[in-house]
Amino acid sequence: MAVGENIRPTLHAVDGVRLGTANARIKNNDKDDLLLIEVSEGATVSGVFTQNAFCAAPVILAKKHIAGGSTQYLIVNSGNANACTGERGLQDALSLCKQVAKASGVDVTHVLPFSTGVIGEYLPMEKLLSALPAAFESLSHDHWQDAAHAIMTTDTRPKEASIQFEYDGETITLTGVAKGAGMIRPNMATMLAYVATDAVVAQSVLDDLLSASVNRSFNRITVDGDTSTNDACILIATGQAGLPMLSESGGELYRKLESALTDVMQSLARGIIKDAEGASKFVAIHVGGGANSEESLQVAYAIAHSPLVKTALYASDANWGRIVCAIGYSGILKLDPHAVDVWLDDVQIVERGQRASSYTEAAGSKVVAQESFALTVNLNRGSCEETVWTSDLSHDYITINAEYRT
Amino acid sequence: MAVGENIRPTLHAVDGVRLGTANARIKNNDKDDLLLIEVSEGATVSGVFTQNAFCAAPVILAKKHIAGGSTQYLIVNSGNANACTGERGLQDALSLCKQVAKASGVDVTHVLPFSTGVIGEYLPMEKLLSALPAAFESLSHDHWQDAAHAIMTTDTRPKEASIQFEYDGETITLTGVAKGAGMIRPNMATMLAYVATDAVVAQSVLDDLLSASVNRSFNRITVDGDTSTNDACILIATGQAGLPMLSESGGELYRKLESALTDVMQSLARGIIKDAEGASKFVAIHVGGGANSEESLQVAYAIAHSPLVKTALYASDANWGRIVCAIGYSGILKLDPHAVDVWLDDVQIVERGQRASSYTEAAGSKVVAQESFALTVNLNRGSCEETVWTSDLSHDYITINAEYRT
Repeated sequence: MAVGENIRPTLHAVDGVRLGTANARIKNNDKDDLLLIEVSEGATVSGVFTQNAFCAAPVILAKKHIAGGSTQYLIVNSGNANACTGERGLQDALSLCKQVAKASGVDVTHVLPFSTGVIGEYLPMEKLLSALPAAFESLSHDHWQDAAHAIMTTDTRPKEASIQFEYDGETITLTGVAKGAGMIRPNMATMLAYVATDAVVAQSVLDDLLSASVNRSFNRITVDGDTSTNDACILIATGQAGLPMLSESGGELYRKLESALTDVMQSLARGIIKDAEGASKFVAIHVGGGANSEESLQVAYAIAHSPLVKTALYASDANWGRIVCAIGYSGILKLDPHAVDVWLDDVQIVERGQRASSYTEAAGSKVVAQESFALTVNLNRGSCEETVWTSDLSHDYITINAEYRT
Repeated sequence: MAVGENIRPTLHAVDGVRLGTANARIKNNDKDDLLLIEVSEGATVSGVFTQNAFCAAPVILAKKHIAGGSTQYLIVNSGNANACTGERGLQDALSLCKQVAKASGVDVTHVLPFSTGVIGEYLPMEKLLSALPAAFESLSHDHWQDAAHAIMTTDTRPKEASIQFEYDGETITLTGVAKGAGMIRPNMATMLAYVATDAVVAQSVLDDLLSASVNRSFNRITVDGDTSTNDACILIATGQAGLPMLSESGGELYRKLESALTDVMQSLARGIIKDAEGASKFVAIHVGGGANSEESLQVAYAIAHSPLVKTALYASDANWGRIVCAIGYSGILKLDPHAVDVWLDDVQIVERGQRASSYTEAAGSKVVAQESFALTVNLNRGSCEETVWTSDLSHDYITINAEYRT
């Protein structure tokens, strides 16, 4: 089950990025599960990673390697997270990097490893190393769609986005893929996402761009409140577009790039929620009138994580009592319930803390019967607004997660 | 579905407390939904209430009335929470108190109102007022079991507990009932719970006793992390036992009373989790080795609220990866994953942050196949331990909450 049509956008190639996939048969099925991304020399690469204290071995190594600069290869496997695997897990991730380095003639620190899948099992190293040559052989500028497929786990759809815009007579391209369907409450990063542009961007500016766009996309989605051990989001700027180096944040090109990048990131992030485990609804939760950004987010996440709200959404039940209950326990200081307004799309359901006088069950039910709608809260105590995207909690979520390891 | 046998304990009458029930047909079924509790003059009564900002009309009024002292009647209805009902809700709660006061000849401020059920609908006042005389007529010392039934909503079982102990040649009795099955993460209070003793206890000492026992029972359970708008826990000391007034905390009798009261409260709290909506498992989560109580609780609640852990429990899957993942994102400062140990009953599953070398899937599966077991975490960074009780997340939870209003 997933929300909305599965429209697969055209993915524009990005000069300086080649992608190759192979099937290492980690889960013994016919889907490719190994992805190799090659980045041209001189590209800048920026990354954000999970804040989970139990971050996985590849995350530890990728953070170390990316800090040294000059990244040239990313090696990604799905089907096994290589998390909670201790020293052996680190050695396995390093061996994989070494093999990529050896095959390509680069330094091992120029290779970043990534894994996603089940936690607590060792990587099947023999399978992975045997499949690596096939991944090298298939390297191509046009394999973005294959890449999106290769990183999927419980995903039922690939997440892909691509944008081009003109600047100073040059076409600038941004293309990205992501994966993720459960264990989703990214914290400074997401599941796995790889976005590349041919823009020419200095490292510090690239870091700013990544941080700004992630905070408005992957850091604003939640399926189940579970922050994974393996989240990572990587932004590559190959510098192949015929433009001068973007060496300062701000300015016209920076703003255009930031806007395009946020579009790509939000599109991928929304794709994750629409394909959330068991999702039948896609809900944008806007919380405005907050005294600050933190309390708006606190309220938005309280609603987005309430199992009672999520089951009501699943049932297409405009159960506003559960929504105000979640607002009430969100923990923000000195909340005045009599100031709170709530809407479902443009139907006001709560007015000053009570059922809105104009509200009818029929009008509310019509909104929540849709696959996709907005739930808007106004706390009426400030001017800060935040948006979080979430899904419902369905029988399929239980089935998927009760059966995932079997 | 509920966990374990439904053993209904003998409920000893408490001198000075009479209980009457009636059917106001709020939900148009044959179960009594109105409970009247009469407390003898001179009793002391203490209460703790929900911290939800949207606390319901009866909570607002009960807090006001109890502060004045001299409580003599508690009037409770199930089937309608009278929450988010604004000024009219307050008037309705007050009218109910007035009617009880009129019928019994006490001051209206000596009556405490309570409601539990659906949020956001007005009380059916005519039905309630018509049923009140029948509740008065049925007042009896022996109606504790009827009381437990009358306050049930989605509960499939009554929650009842009763203890007697000897002190100074006198038998002291403690008897209580509670209700609650969903929207359970009490915060300084629980759903509805009423416990009475015939001990002779000064108000300040009774407040201490209530606070101490609630913090070790109702404030340590969670079903879905949703703190209700209507939580209340009331402790009555009728003073009918032939003992001198307990006017100071500490001392032998205080300790005995506290211990007995904590037993009663924990028994009721466990009863709520065993009957949690859709529950097929009852899990005690012990988190030891914490630097302080707060961080032990933070870790315990992160595990207890993780939908992924809860669905794995439902599937009898010893998915320790999800457990360590929840520990990892619980947000405690500078957690060293390599220090963490985890057990399922006495089977160690995680040793210093990794799968324990002695662990076998067979041993883990055997533990989680049970209806009831312990999940123990040692953070190995201090000496504070906390326990939280929780349930699993099942298809039945979704079904119950997707269909509750229909």
